[in-house]
Amino acid sequence: MAVNSPLPLAGNLKPVAGLELGYAEAGIKKPGRKDLLIIKLPEGATVAGVFTTNRFCAAPVQLAKAHLASGKSIRALLINTGNANAGTGEAGLTNASATCTALAGLLGCDSQQILPFSTGVILEPLPVDRLIAGLPAAIANLKTDNWINAAEAIMTTDTQPKAASRIVTIGGKSVTLTGISKGAGMIKPNMATMLGYIACDAKVPQALLNDLVKHAADQSFNCITIDGDTSTNDSFMLIATGAGALEISDAKSAEYAALQEAVTDLAQELAQMIVRDGEGATKFITIKIEQGKSRDECRKIAYAIGHSPLVKTAFFASDPNLGRILAAIGYAGVDDLDVAKIDLYLDDVWVAKNGGRNPDYREEEGQRVMQQSEITVRVTLARGEAAATIWTCDLSHDYVSINADYRS
Amino acid sequence: MAVNSPLPLAGNLKPVAGLELGYAEAGIKKPGRKDLLIIKLPEGATVAGVFTTNRFCAAPVQLAKAHLASGKSIRALLINTGNANAGTGEAGLTNASATCTALAGLLGCDSQQILPFSTGVILEPLPVDRLIAGLPAAIANLKTDNWINAAEAIMTTDTQPKAASRIVTIGGKSVTLTGISKGAGMIKPNMATMLGYIACDAKVPQALLNDLVKHAADQSFNCITIDGDTSTNDSFMLIATGAGALEISDAKSAEYAALQEAVTDLAQELAQMIVRDGEGATKFITIKIEQGKSRDECRKIAYAIGHSPLVKTAFFASDPNLGRILAAIGYAGVDDLDVAKIDLYLDDVWVAKNGGRNPDYREEEGQRVMQQSEITVRVTLARGEAAATIWTCDLSHDYVSINADYRS
Repeated sequence: MAVNSPLPLAGNLKPVAGLELGYAEAGIKKPGRKDLLIIKLPEGATVAGVFTTNRFCAAPVQLAKAHLASGKSIRALLINTGNANAGTGEAGLTNASATCTALAGLLGCDSQQILPFSTGVILEPLPVDRLIAGLPAAIANLKTDNWINAAEAIMTTDTQPKAASRIVTIGGKSVTLTGISKGAGMIKPNMATMLGYIACDAKVPQALLNDLVKHAADQSFNCITIDGDTSTNDSFMLIATGAGALEISDAKSAEYAALQEAVTDLAQELAQMIVRDGEGATKFITIKIEQGKSRDECRKIAYAIGHSPLVKTAFFASDPNLGRILAAIGYAGVDDLDVAKIDLYLDDVWVAKNGGRNPDYREEEGQRVMQQSEITVRVTLARGEAAATIWTCDLSHDYVSINADYRS
Repeated sequence: MAVNSPLPLAGNLKPVAGLELGYAEAGIKKPGRKDLLIIKLPEGATVAGVFTTNRFCAAPVQLAKAHLASGKSIRALLINTGNANAGTGEAGLTNASATCTALAGLLGCDSQQILPFSTGVILEPLPVDRLIAGLPAAIANLKTDNWINAAEAIMTTDTQPKAASRIVTIGGKSVTLTGISKGAGMIKPNMATMLGYIACDAKVPQALLNDLVKHAADQSFNCITIDGDTSTNDSFMLIATGAGALEISDAKSAEYAALQEAVTDLAQELAQMIVRDGEGATKFITIKIEQGKSRDECRKIAYAIGHSPLVKTAFFASDPNLGRILAAIGYAGVDDLDVAKIDLYLDDVWVAKNGGRNPDYREEEGQRVMQQSEITVRVTLARGEAAATIWTCDLSHDYVSINADYRS
């Protein structure tokens, strides 16, 4: 069902030196589905992350933040699907902590060296016993070339696994980057997508990795929306195993800039995969707002368009009912916007000019673009130099079906 | 299709002394459908209104505001459906003005004494010639007991006309209030609904009527949402014909308070009718947020819940997947919210306690309430005395169908 998003092939996903992945079927989801993933890191690896801004942030998110802040070296990430462990109060924290302690015991490290992540239903107690019982099986199959299985293990309503790799040469040294992501609904990240993980084999000190992950999230997972719902569990983690040839030490170096570009590029591909596989998506929509006073106001307008159920259903229907886009621009909350200066383009078609219908616009042209599976909406505000781009999908019958039936 | 909203009966809609309504089939919508309405006011009537905050506010909205501001006495309201005359630039203003001039000529008044309103497709030129050609027929059937026809004449995707009446006794004098409204999508008014009109036969000076209409809108049309889209054409008008027995002169009088209550009560009924007939609605949801620091933060949280497609599809499915409500509370943008103090009730069922699942909550109880056609979500924040209530509906397959097919 995903829009122009080919299935990742196991052979195209490059192992990242030093990093192993192990999965299990722990019975948290329905029997026969992978629902547990361990990502094991080598000594000396660094990890940085960004997390949901939702005030109801889940117990594992709270714990992962605390463990990162402890300054101890992280040895493993522990991820379960089928249950979000969110809206679970004190008991949720106790449960998340118990899973970290159990894995730490099996790996011979401290529980603060484990980062926990959960995704699935909110407000239900985490089935701790089943999760812990699944750990030995996941440890038993830890392998460096398990990326495709890892991508499958973190799926919920996703229709396909999301994973991609890059091998880039930086400063004459080869760097491998591989990442996975998941998330098909409750997607309007405001820090990260539901779950995204990228590993590279460069050696990157903690402070620089913190900057890298923020920059990449800001240009990728924080630029997508499916339904405007910001999850309680969004997390995007960047791992540098340090087991490869490249070592970064200076944020002003050409090597840092090149690594930042490679990480951001991979994060964008993973984020776009989430949109392409958005619940019920039949169209992939890029929304570009240009000539704004600030990136913030451009993003406000882009999200107003991207969240409008009326705009999204028009895309689903391939109906060039494009006045709905103007209406969304108008209620985006940019108070001093002069609508008489606004132009609207649909791909190469100039639809609205100076806030009104372009006299040369012909409906057949709009119809032609609306029938494509990939469409760019471009709006120029004529009030500055700032710009923003977001990616979203349409709203179809299947979105309603998927979310009406999610737990059944 | 509307949720527990009986069809208004012509006989229950009381004429408002001094006010006449005339309609026509002008061919702006499909043939055979009423699409033109004139509301004619007697000498001495006062009119006040609130309008959309959308920056792309439609040409007729701009003109209606200007005509009201001119201070001339208003003699008629002219309303068409089938075309919003929005996103139409300068030509839109010229067209709206031409319709006012034409009606003013027929009624023997100045064009500034006419208030124009439009609703329908955005970004399409107003068919001025057909609209003007329909005016004589509408004038020919001007009658005081045409309220049910008037309610039908302003429908777009509405499945049924919306109208209600009150006869109240204030200060020993009888006052008649009758109102109509429309709007089934693009509904998250921020000033008023798409179109709402209430008339009463009291005599009310302009300044007091201005206050009355703001108070009523704030407690009614500004408390509903269907899809979060704020229309370009929202307008709510309050007319006092002055042809009845009651005369109001003092904002501090008991009579003023009683009239305010009657107007607000009628506006709430009309606003709720819009939600009950929301596009594809199968459930009527009341969202009450209590114990907040301010009404504003309570409204933020209420709208986050009311706009969440995930919450709305869960209601459609009668699925007590209530964690989605907590997630929406968490991303509502109230930054210092202490989620550990939050309780959540579904009608009489205590679902979440101190930010987590209530240990005594049983899913069967949640399931029982979710199957009802009318449900109240109540959230207590334990941080103050403020409260807010909004009304919304679920998100169903039919919402997608209606909006995918709107123009076809």
